[in-house]
Amino acid sequence: MNRSSLGLRIPTGMRDLLPEEMAIQDQVEQKIVTLFKLWAYQKVSTPALEYGACLQPDEEKGDQFYKFFDRQGHVLVLRPELTTPIARMVSSRLKGSELPLRLCYSADIYRTVSNRNREYRQAGVELMGSANPLADAEVIALAVESLRELGLNDFQFNLGHMGIFSGIMDELKIDSEFRLNYEELLAHKDLVGIERLVEQSEFPDSARKILLKIPHFHGQAEMLEEVLEWSQSPSLQDAVASLKMVYEYLRDFKVQEYVALDLGILRGFTYYTGAVFEGYVRDIGYPVIEGGRYDALYGEFGYALPATGFAMNLGALAERMNPKAKPNPTVLVYGDNITEVIQAVQKLRGQGTQAEMGIDLSPAEAEMLAQRKGIAQIKRIE
Amino acid sequence: MNRSSLGLRIPTGMRDLLPEEMAIQDQVEQKIVTLFKLWAYQKVSTPALEYGACLQPDEEKGDQFYKFFDRQGHVLVLRPELTTPIARMVSSRLKGSELPLRLCYSADIYRTVSNRNREYRQAGVELMGSANPLADAEVIALAVESLRELGLNDFQFNLGHMGIFSGIMDELKIDSEFRLNYEELLAHKDLVGIERLVEQSEFPDSARKILLKIPHFHGQAEMLEEVLEWSQSPSLQDAVASLKMVYEYLRDFKVQEYVALDLGILRGFTYYTGAVFEGYVRDIGYPVIEGGRYDALYGEFGYALPATGFAMNLGALAERMNPKAKPNPTVLVYGDNITEVIQAVQKLRGQGTQAEMGIDLSPAEAEMLAQRKGIAQIKRIE
Repeated sequence: MNRSSLGLRIPTGMRDLLPEEMAIQDQVEQKIVTLFKLWAYQKVSTPALEYGACLQPDEEKGDQFYKFFDRQGHVLVLRPELTTPIARMVSSRLKGSELPLRLCYSADIYRTVSNRNREYRQAGVELMGSANPLADAEVIALAVESLRELGLNDFQFNLGHMGIFSGIMDELKIDSEFRLNYEELLAHKDLVGIERLVEQSEFPDSARKILLKIPHFHGQAEMLEEVLEWSQSPSLQDAVASLKMVYEYLRDFKVQEYVALDLGILRGFTYYTGAVFEGYVRDIGYPVIEGGRYDALYGEFGYALPATGFAMNLGALAERMNPKAKPNPTVLVYGDNITEVIQAVQKLRGQGTQAEMGIDLSPAEAEMLAQRKGIAQIKRIE
Repeated sequence: MNRSSLGLRIPTGMRDLLPEEMAIQDQVEQKIVTLFKLWAYQKVSTPALEYGACLQPDEEKGDQFYKFFDRQGHVLVLRPELTTPIARMVSSRLKGSELPLRLCYSADIYRTVSNRNREYRQAGVELMGSANPLADAEVIALAVESLRELGLNDFQFNLGHMGIFSGIMDELKIDSEFRLNYEELLAHKDLVGIERLVEQSEFPDSARKILLKIPHFHGQAEMLEEVLEWSQSPSLQDAVASLKMVYEYLRDFKVQEYVALDLGILRGFTYYTGAVFEGYVRDIGYPVIEGGRYDALYGEFGYALPATGFAMNLGALAERMNPKAKPNPTVLVYGDNITEVIQAVQKLRGQGTQAEMGIDLSPAEAEMLAQRKGIAQIKRIE
């Protein structure tokens, strides 16, 4: 049946990968997964469809998901990330594995967040079963190495800690409405908005001062001393001590130079509880890597484990890579004696040479085909 | 929020791939895609979501699809196969490419056909732009080589031709109701049912004879002579001649021994028009490879091109492979001096050695961990 104009199109946010685009993405993926395995992460996969009850039991949230109903009326969701599905998997079939458990993945994810790129390849790692800051440092160092592995050097990581931000909020006894507004402005680095919000508030001067300062807590380890001077609350002190250790380990991993502390970063997923980080590459206006510690998620699946990890937008990174030579075969074999053409092309393939069999080609057509497709060698079978 | 029992489960027909399972599937996929590329097929990908108007404009059909509505009320379908999406892609962004065009893919597909395996990895090739039987032979030979590449030898291909079956039906002037019933029985090789159906019919004896014979047209090229003796209709003669050529080329490709002619095979997708084939592996009760010529599909996308190809159930083949050794790292590095542990583990990785960093391990714990995970070497940093 002839296709309507809709039938010739692709749904919003979807895309095809043509040979050159696919070759680049495959190459990027292979480099990254090979690196993850070198660091002792084992690759797994989870299905494209999960129950909404697994991914987002609070139905009020999760509006950026592709949702639909199965025949029993349960909400199904196209996987928007893999951290939660992997928590489901580890809490069931991998329960009782040796800890810490290191897993990695590379899979397409689905979010209705923009009209572009509603489907893209995401690669990431999860380290379950250790609350040690060394575990945080390992995944952050691996995130940095991932971008270096791709030959990038114009990137920057920011590292914060949910416990420091929450500790300040708790100490100031900030009400939840103000906090939500403040977080929203902070996430967008809206300094003017923050100034207006704080000025309209009724907090004492000392509190106002710290609220105006948080967005500017960006830099090296010294600023952590400033936080400690301001407050002596034990939970805040613990968070600062933990973040300091992570940052020191990053020096041992020789990646500290790529990482700046930033107490104002707040990762989008609500499950983060400790050190959080994001990686930016020049000319991409959103973080290509997001990660952090999420010590509460596994408890929600009945298997309380501390955990940390990150996810990288492999699709966006692949798009940014320079296309290499077209992934074309090296030899074109053609001629009138089909039996001998088949034998010749099969012999080349047997030797590991990529070979294309010409079908119905005259010598002139073979020349033209090879030229247009960039095939270096023509083999004519007389 | 704690998960309900539903939130701990996985939707019907979905599955996780644990490290060992994933390693096998990745290995199978890499072998197959490498082979496809050796034969000059370029890898592409299409999105998980397509418009129903693209995949199945006849809304009466396609009941084995995952369907849902987008916000504009259009039907979206999770890709149940890639032949049609690739036709959409070639008819748009790849229109005007050099012909013949050879593309391949490996991607997860989604069908609600059974309660098991509603999502599985499918790999396949498409050869567009040649109506020559040599093109059919190439894809069939590649299908056979794919199974050989996986180290299999207990497999069998059946090769038929839609034109022969249709030619017989047309010549007998079979009405569509009888034909549908007959096809259904033939697809299930229900010989008793076919006998009953034919006996209840009012066809002349010669027609009854051929209708009873079709399910038994299975074997080598000689049986094609029998079909030619029975009918001299030009369309049937063309189909037989084409199938004979394909079969002869398979001898040149040195794969004929794996392929039996079978005039009773009818592939499930309605788009097949010429030579059709299916590959069976011992102990799997359904074809792991299905393919054939589909010369009408591209016309429906406004870009009339002859085409042939096949798809293989890579997931089922991977499940059948013997698990290799666990994909574990080779060295465990641990010790009290974290700085030196980090340097040692990083040095090993720099040398290409898969290395796991021990976190919070005593010597006894390190021994036990290595033993349980099958890690061959332990490196303790004093």
